[in-house]
Parts: sequence; structure tokens; C-alpha cells
Amino acid sequence: MEDSDLSFDPGLEHVLAGETRLSTIDGEAGELVIGGFPLEELAPNATYEEALYLLWNDRLPTEEELSTFRSDLAAHRDLSDGALAAIREAAERRDDAMDAERIGAACASLARPAEEDTDGEVTTHERDAMVAVAQLPTAVAAYWRVANGEEPVAPRDDLTHAANYLWMLTGEEPTDEQVRGLETYLCSVIDHGFNASTYTARVVASTESDVLSAVTGAVGALKGPLHGGAPGPVLDMLEEIADHGDPQTWLTDRLDAGERLMGFGHRVYRVRDPRAAVLSEAAEEFYAGEESAFFDLARDVESAAVSVLDERKPGRSLETNVEFYTAVLLRGVGVPRELFSATFGVSRVGGWTAHCLEQYADNRIVRPRSRYVGETGRTWTPVGER
Amino acid sequence: MEDSDLSFDPGLEHVLAGETRLSTIDGEAGELVIGGFPLEELAPNATYEEALYLLWNDRLPTEEELSTFRSDLAAHRDLSDGALAAIREAAERRDDAMDAERIGAACASLARPAEEDTDGEVTTHERDAMVAVAQLPTAVAAYWRVANGEEPVAPRDDLTHAANYLWMLTGEEPTDEQVRGLETYLCSVIDHGFNASTYTARVVASTESDVLSAVTGAVGALKGPLHGGAPGPVLDMLEEIADHGDPQTWLTDRLDAGERLMGFGHRVYRVRDPRAAVLSEAAEEFYAGEESAFFDLARDVESAAVSVLDERKPGRSLETNVEFYTAVLLRGVGVPRELFSATFGVSRVGGWTAHCLEQYADNRIVRPRSRYVGETGRTWTPVGER
Repeated sequence: MEDSDLSFDPGLEHVLAGETRLSTIDGEAGELVIGGFPLEELAPNATYEEALYLLWNDRLPTEEELSTFRSDLAAHRDLSDGALAAIREAAERRDDAMDAERIGAACASLARPAEEDTDGEVTTHERDAMVAVAQLPTAVAAYWRVANGEEPVAPRDDLTHAANYLWMLTGEEPTDEQVRGLETYLCSVIDHGFNASTYTARVVASTESDVLSAVTGAVGALKGPLHGGAPGPVLDMLEEIADHGDPQTWLTDRLDAGERLMGFGHRVYRVRDPRAAVLSEAAEEFYAGEESAFFDLARDVESAAVSVLDERKPGRSLETNVEFYTAVLLRGVGVPRELFSATFGVSRVGGWTAHCLEQYADNRIVRPRSRYVGETGRTWTPVGER
Repeated sequence: MEDSDLSFDPGLEHVLAGETRLSTIDGEAGELVIGGFPLEELAPNATYEEALYLLWNDRLPTEEELSTFRSDLAAHRDLSDGALAAIREAAERRDDAMDAERIGAACASLARPAEEDTDGEVTTHERDAMVAVAQLPTAVAAYWRVANGEEPVAPRDDLTHAANYLWMLTGEEPTDEQVRGLETYLCSVIDHGFNASTYTARVVASTESDVLSAVTGAVGALKGPLHGGAPGPVLDMLEEIADHGDPQTWLTDRLDAGERLMGFGHRVYRVRDPRAAVLSEAAEEFYAGEESAFFDLARDVESAAVSVLDERKPGRSLETNVEFYTAVLLRGVGVPRELFSATFGVSRVGGWTAHCLEQYADNRIVRPRSRYVGETGRTWTPVGER
């Protein structure tokens, strides 16, 4: 086939790169469906384990299934010695939390049970999916503890996935409100179509590589500032505006200086990201009394920003995206700002693993074409004659 | 945009997913150009450092540039303690060499020099590219030593990239012939269009994530049996046929049993893979005297296989691919069979890093569309009522 018969589409905006039953986005209407449920129906109700079971099995678990699933997942939480050594070094070097999460994902193979320990009813891919989801929170929490000069807190298998993550971060049992706030976040962002990290996982899986390799690639993609990187900077922005006092002036000054505002605009949504509403509602719980001033500020910044962006860039539909209220909610729950992106990974690994399982079930290796723009016909010159 | 306006192309066979000056393949003619050179011109002449410099800079280095480049690269070879601990554990568990290579890539961030040590003239991405290329061979060699109950051999910065890899594998200085054989292999497979691992690297880089994250994802894709996995099985096949004695019968028996022959057929090439000729010629050097029987056998297997495949699957053009003579050449050089795929990664990391640098220079985040085939409008049922 000649190049001229092919479409040139480096962002793949015009390609259906596969089928999925995991999630679908209506960017015009601002609607997101995850595992068959409208986001607003799933995220405030489900625990992370339920949402994960839903993605893997296309239905919610019964009480008994959920209980077994919870303990199976909890059984894979302990880090290997090798993973811990590498994560410790990343923390001591003050490397980014996403470096530690990528290392944790890559080293999760060291936490695979020996073959004789695996349940015969579970495939290797399903076992790896379980290991990936269970290991990432432990990796991120261990990094955080060491980065703060403390020892890692061992996981507890009597706690749910979300509660155990908060436990490992702080060494304190979280409140029910904290756990519910985190569950809502984790279920809101667990899957979102063929975004760059999810697509990375599918491309890796398309070679019939293993789930842990695919998840490791996906963590690397999520690390990019164009993908998972904005909630931290959103919080920085909100705190700067709180100090400054006047959202309108602060925002217009930034835009005048040619800077980009974090937390607004999305490739797919032309209206407000539906996750913003769910996360905002969950966040509000954490901002009672004295704390309410910060939540009110966030609301003010949102409306000022949307209106000034509409004025400056008419027709661009730069509406509030998921990252804006992620910052507000995770701050309320008590997840440190430095871990926002890594916590995004702790959720999205559920989607990545589900996409891998889907890819294996109906696979075609991904091998796009490229347009060559280089030289041809060069001839070799030995180094002494150059 | 409606789904019906988009093309459905899960393998991306009909999409030009970007531009590149790094390599181009004419699958009908069986021609491969790398960095502007026909493969046959580059691979038998270049050292790995020269091929790498060519990909990164679009020209060959002068003698002085090459000397500086060699020592810059050699300066990043030492593994971090964390990487070594994790790789050691992978080896002790008898995990696959590709698991160790993925761990080595993910942990390469621990070998990044501290900011104050970096040369101001080198960008962060270029520094990471250097670290990635320098670290992978050390990771693979350390894995191999420990897997064989030996201690890792420290890298030597007075040896070239290829020579040092063989040194770290064996603890013995390789001969010039071994080094040249390995260089020819490393330069033959350093880049090959938008294959699945290279495309993985570009998708990760498209989020503006770092080179090490992109390379880690790419190693994971290379791990898949549909991508980097065949040279080992090719060698197994040749050794089985050597024991059996009759290539023709062995091959037809396998095909009668519905098995696939390893080392034949390629998505892109409709004729013999041009790398097969270059690798075959390089391999022949290692099969003199008594050893010539194995090389002759490989030739016999090739011609018998191509003719029986043409008979059984007419029009499919199942010609010899790169993996067939990779197995023969690497066996001759003395690279252990268990490291064939990982050694492919030791080469291809040159292409991956060059593709990352190209992607950053003209970037668009990769975010394809997907076709939704799941339910919608499900309503929540509390767990007790399921």
C-alpha cells in the first residue's frame, strides 16, 4: 500500500483503535458510562473493589463474591524486597512519586506467587491483573513514607483497598468519610476510553506481553504532564490564588503573561467534564466550618476561569476538567499533593488491567505505518575520513 | 464526530501515525533504510555507538565526536543499588530475562546523575536517552550472572558498548570477531519503523513523559511473543532438527500437526527480510570447521521451510524473517539463548530513544477513539440486594 492511500493522523483522533465494553464518553453531552453505569450512578456508590470487579466481569459481585475478591486482592499487597529497595532509593533521591510508581509496577513481577501457589481457576493474566492492582498502592505509600524520613507501614489485609491505602500513607486508620471520599475518586477515574495510558497498555498487550509489562508502560504514560500531571499544579494554583485574594485579577494576569491555566479543557469534552460534578460534590463534605473558605474559593476560581477563558478563547469550550476537583477532593481526603498523579494511577490501574484482558480476548498486534522524511542512499565513510 | 465517520483499524495498518527520519521499510522490495543508509551499507560497517549517534544526530560522528560520545555513554553503565537488588531477586526467582530488562529500564532513573553533575549542553531528554542505552546491557548481564549463580561483572569504561556487554556476560574479553558479529546484529535491528515497541515508546513520549518511562514501556512490548520472542524458539527448532536429522520431514510433521514455524513471515515484508541476508553473512564467520554443519543445517532448514510454506500457504509470502538468522548469529557470537530477546532490547533501545526525541520535537498526544460495545443505563443495586 502506498503512503498516499493512508490517512495521516499522529494523534489518532480519527481512528477507532478497538472495541471496548469498559467505558464510553459522549463529549458533546458531557456523559461518561463506566461498566454500563452512568458515572453519577456508579462513583458515589461503589467501593473500589466493586468497580474493579465490574470492569473485569461486566457485572457487580454478590456479597460472597465481593468478600472473596477483597481477600484475594489483599493477599497480593506485600512488596518484594527488591521492589522495596529500589523504591526506597527513589524516595531517598527525592525522585518523583511517578518514578517510584513505575518502579513498583515493573517490580510487581517479583511479587507474583510461585506457580504452585496459584489457584488453578485463575489465568496467568488474571493473576497478574490482581498483583498489579494490589501492588501499586503499597509502592506509592512506601515511597511516601521513606521520602518523609519514616519507615513504610505494612499493608493490612483486614482493610478495604481504599482504607488500606490511606492506612499505609499515614499509619492511622482513616475515618469512614475519608474512605468514602477516596472511593468516589477512585471509582470516578478508574476508566475513560482509550486515553494515552490505557492505549499504551493495549499496545503492549497486543504483542501478547504480560499485564504487568502493560501496566508499567501505562504508568509511564500517565507520568506525562499532558496526561496525569495537572491536579498537583491545580492545587498550587488554588493556594496561590488564596494568598493573592482576587481570582479574577490573578487569572487574567496569568493569561496576559501567556500562561496556561491548569484544570480546564479536555480533548474529548466540549462541556464540563461529568467527573467534575461528582468529585466536587464528594469534595464539599470535607470543607465544613473554617475549611469552607477553600471550597468557596475553588468555586469562585472555576467560574472566573471559565468565563475569562470563554472571553479570551471563544468557541474553544475550555470547561472545568477532572483534574480541577480531583485536587480539591484529594486535598480534603488528606492525600498529599505530591501523590496526586500516583493516586490517579492507583485508580486507573483497574481500567488498564481490564483493557489488557479485553485486548487478549480479541487481539491484533498494533503496528502503524509511518511517513518517512529522511535521507536515502547514503554511503559509508570510515571514521578516519569523515 | 460520530463513530460511523471514523475508520475501524485495531492494528493501525492503514494509518500513518507520524513522521520519522529514522528508518523506512519497503516491504515489497525487501529494502530497509536506517538513518539514510541502506541496511547493507550500515550494519556490517558501523559500531553500535556510530549507529546510535547517527540516529540521534542524522549524521555519522567525526573521530573526536565519536570518542567523546563513547566515553559519555560509558559513564552511565553502573547500576544503582536498588536496580541491582531488584534484578538479583528476578534472577534468583528464575523470572524471564525480559522481566529483568523491564525492571532495569524502570530503575534506570536511579542511575540518573544528580542535576549538578549534568553537562549544561545536554537536555534532560538527551541525558535520559544516554542513561537508558547505557543501563540496559548492565541490567541484562547482571541478571544473567546471578541466574547462573555468579556475581555480576562490573562494566569497563575502556571497552566499546558491544565489547563491554560481552565482557559483563562472561567476565572474559571478547575477540574482535565476536565484537564485530555483535555490532552487526546490534546495528541491523536498532530501528525498524513504527513496530509495536517503538510505537509504545512514542505513545508514552506523546504525553511528554520522560525517555526512561517510554523505554520501559517499550521493553514491555518487546517482551510479547508476537514481537521480540521468536529467536529463542528458532534456535530450539534448529537444535531439534539437528537431532532429528531430516529437515523436510520434521517441518512437514510440524505443519501437519497445525503448528507454526518460528522465523518465517512478517507483517511488512512480502519477500525475504533484508536483515536475514546481513545477519546470515555475519553468522557464517562463526561456523568454520566442525561448526559449519550447524550453519549448513540452518541453510537447509531455511530453504526447506520456505518451499514447504509456499506449498502449504501459497501467496502468503512466508519468507525468512530477522529472527531466523538472529538465532544463528547470536549463537555464534556466544550470547545465551535465554538472552536473545533481551539482547534485541539492548539494540532497539537506540531506536526507541531516537523516536522519543523525534516525538518531543513535533508532538501531538496520542488518544485514539474506541467503539463502545457495552451496556448503558445500568442502575445501582446495593450489595445486599444482588
